[in-house]
Amino acid sequence: MQTLESYIREKGKVYPGNILKVDSFLNHQIEPSVIRAMAKEIRRLFADCPVTKVLTIEASGIAIAILVAEEFGVPMLFAKKSHSANLSPDVYSTKVTSYTHGTVYDVRVAKDFLRADDHVLLVDDFLANGAALLGLADLVRQAGATLSGAAIAIEKGFQQGGQIVREAGIRLESLAIVDSMQDGNITFREQPHQS
Amino acid sequence: MQTLESYIREKGKVYPGNILKVDSFLNHQIEPSVIRAMAKEIRRLFADCPVTKVLTIEASGIAIAILVAEEFGVPMLFAKKSHSANLSPDVYSTKVTSYTHGTVYDVRVAKDFLRADDHVLLVDDFLANGAALLGLADLVRQAGATLSGAAIAIEKGFQQGGQIVREAGIRLESLAIVDSMQDGNITFREQPHQS
Repeated sequence: MQTLESYIREKGKVYPGNILKVDSFLNHQIEPSVIRAMAKEIRRLFADCPVTKVLTIEASGIAIAILVAEEFGVPMLFAKKSHSANLSPDVYSTKVTSYTHGTVYDVRVAKDFLRADDHVLLVDDFLANGAALLGLADLVRQAGATLSGAAIAIEKGFQQGGQIVREAGIRLESLAIVDSMQDGNITFREQPHQS
Repeated sequence: MQTLESYIREKGKVYPGNILKVDSFLNHQIEPSVIRAMAKEIRRLFADCPVTKVLTIEASGIAIAILVAEEFGVPMLFAKKSHSANLSPDVYSTKVTSYTHGTVYDVRVAKDFLRADDHVLLVDDFLANGAALLGLADLVRQAGATLSGAAIAIEKGFQQGGQIVREAGIRLESLAIVDSMQDGNITFREQPHQS
């Protein structure tokens, strides 16, 4: 998506270790106009899919997910992270390993809000190793709901998450795929079907 | 705000200990149409105020804040909670005591995104004892920015936060003020200036 790629080029900052910071418009300070354009593109890309619910994970996926949900006219649900071991019978829960922080945490949603007749679109800001997205997909599976697909703002194409998710048979649309960040020069993967 | 009060009456659940759960539409599953109506009402209530930035705190304030920011046509910034003691010189930080969880945590924003010439509207989903809101106000003060006011979805009028915030001279608009929840019957405070 050209709007997003332009923003990443202009406002993103590349740090050693393949770290891309986009906290001026995407995941700390957030520009509503950029997120709105992204939400409309996600709506367009999944126009042929039934979607009854948008599922994301706290915290930085929430801003995108609420606008995507508004575009589809459906509720948004955000999974909560927990480091507590206490599980309630009222929640679906799965474990996610954070490679960034070297920790394992639980991700939970209330069973009341994820039903077998739901068609669920996953939304998140970043896709790197895919652990968070696969955790969300597992919650959908536990609920017996249908996974419509996953929409991501920025995929790190040089990490394995995108490949794992696609090979798992999940329809994945990443609005920008960063294939490399050599010497601060960002190379995006060509995606001719996107606007 | 009548729309919100109706939702709270119909979909909120009252539990012993003055606990009000609104996780079917406000802070776990989120109904975009309700949040949009709230964002428009907040825009109307603060129409006479200059606002250049909307500031909230992760996670459940983000969905409201992004729509409020979109209504004002300004960026949204969400403060991050941290239990780590590591402070960077690039952030403003303040300590917030969570009475619910009996813990103290740091709340941080990058200095880059909160400037002395900003006029900041605080937005959050709940106001109880006021600790989170006063923490956000302290970040605004540290930045030398101007505090335009605070907009809250649901104020627990039987707790002290609202009084403390108003007595601190902060203009506060709560879209619903719950004055009591006796035996599951919710009483809202009259607010004739609201729609």
